[in-house]
Amino acid sequence: MSRRPPQSGGDAVTWHSADLLDASQRAVVVEEASASHLVHLAWCAEHGRFWTDPENVRWVGATGELVQAFAAAGGRRAVLAGSCAEYDWTGDGLCVEGQTPLRPATLYGTCKDATRRICEALGAQLGVSVAWGRTFFLYGPGEDERRLVAAVARALVAGERAATSEGTQVRDFLHVDDVAAAFAALVSTEAEGAVNIGAGRGVAIREVVEEIGRAAGRPDLLDVGALPARQGDPPVLVPDVRRLGATGWKPALDLGSGLARTVDWWRQSSE
Amino acid sequence: MSRRPPQSGGDAVTWHSADLLDASQRAVVVEEASASHLVHLAWCAEHGRFWTDPENVRWVGATGELVQAFAAAGGRRAVLAGSCAEYDWTGDGLCVEGQTPLRPATLYGTCKDATRRICEALGAQLGVSVAWGRTFFLYGPGEDERRLVAAVARALVAGERAATSEGTQVRDFLHVDDVAAAFAALVSTEAEGAVNIGAGRGVAIREVVEEIGRAAGRPDLLDVGALPARQGDPPVLVPDVRRLGATGWKPALDLGSGLARTVDWWRQSSE
Repeated sequence: MSRRPPQSGGDAVTWHSADLLDASQRAVVVEEASASHLVHLAWCAEHGRFWTDPENVRWVGATGELVQAFAAAGGRRAVLAGSCAEYDWTGDGLCVEGQTPLRPATLYGTCKDATRRICEALGAQLGVSVAWGRTFFLYGPGEDERRLVAAVARALVAGERAATSEGTQVRDFLHVDDVAAAFAALVSTEAEGAVNIGAGRGVAIREVVEEIGRAAGRPDLLDVGALPARQGDPPVLVPDVRRLGATGWKPALDLGSGLARTVDWWRQSSE
Repeated sequence: MSRRPPQSGGDAVTWHSADLLDASQRAVVVEEASASHLVHLAWCAEHGRFWTDPENVRWVGATGELVQAFAAAGGRRAVLAGSCAEYDWTGDGLCVEGQTPLRPATLYGTCKDATRRICEALGAQLGVSVAWGRTFFLYGPGEDERRLVAAVARALVAGERAATSEGTQVRDFLHVDDVAAAFAALVSTEAEGAVNIGAGRGVAIREVVEEIGRAAGRPDLLDVGALPARQGDPPVLVPDVRRLGATGWKPALDLGSGLARTVDWWRQSSE
């Protein structure tokens, strides 16, 4: 289901539209779908705003009540979307499920973390198997132009200079198609609790930027180091992906291929 | 404010009635009150039901949104009600704020714990000072007759036999008047985060029952040990109350006086 009707859907798919923050719409759509499996990705996610968005609080209740309604309608397996923002970012930067302390520094991370706790308790009480996929750094087509990969790809395709910081921070980047495939893999397993979702390879942000330069054929437009580093940005933030790997899932796209596809998408979008 | 109009209120008090689970009623009453200080005690609390009540989930969002509305209306200081059910009960039984692990075993405890996390993040973001009073074992007038103190007091006053377990478990009992006074003390301080609320004295449940026997003048009606012990009940569950003590608050009633008052209340109720 979605708040907005999809652009296209196969014959095998029935779409339901609903605003999950609306209790009555939520009840109707869950009843209509009567699904055995639930993948719930909806949340407030507007770039620059979601960290402190007051709507984060509403998503906690809406997600808990969605799981309750899903269980009441006969649902058995739910996979929900968490975030690396739940972890303590002041440690060594390697995030291991069940080991790295959960110490979110933002309202967004706090609300995601609280939602996992509530939904796991609901799952135990209502007989629903619950997994919680913690995403790290996503990129791909359709991304907000103010985010790093989108900003650099769009600029280079347009023949504009792209200024970035030194980009020494190490992160784990995963193409959205692979993120979607990882959620799909999770829903078919019996893994419960938190599962990190990532490529399993840390790269310096500078490397990502340079890869975009190569894919766009315009490395000359890059101005790496022109911007100051962001205050408080942790030097390393990467997931341990052994739990995800145990599901058999592997990323289909390496960083080069994923970024090349993304640059192509921006090229087509600008034509 | 309250869901139900009060039985009596002094001239200095303005009462507002609202169901805080109703978003529009909540918004209206917070705007009308435009209070600088908030003490929020409402939650689902029906005996035998509240541990697993689906309504726990709704109270998480309602409490978070109450704090948001309170901040928007100019509120500065909020004291919210937590529970000993947030703590891990499988340790040594002494619960210390910030030290004893939070590992709630129930939906109720999980939702209380999640609410604290969310409200502390909201407080930091919105400039509201937030304290979280964790209550332990409460007793006093008006208690549900199925709960221990009420059940024994009511039975003895009615001249009926009161069967209990051996009651070797050690707990911290506090009269509701003292609990209310502790919340009132907290709201006037600047203490932030979790603060245990308790008498600071662990007593065996058997001792409580025998005290009720003395207060009612009918120790002969007690049948201690007639019922089996409850499975999984921790042997000790008591708060460290040093944080609360630092506010200057002290209980006005010792256990004997508090139970005597409670027995008197049951006597008057049965007349």
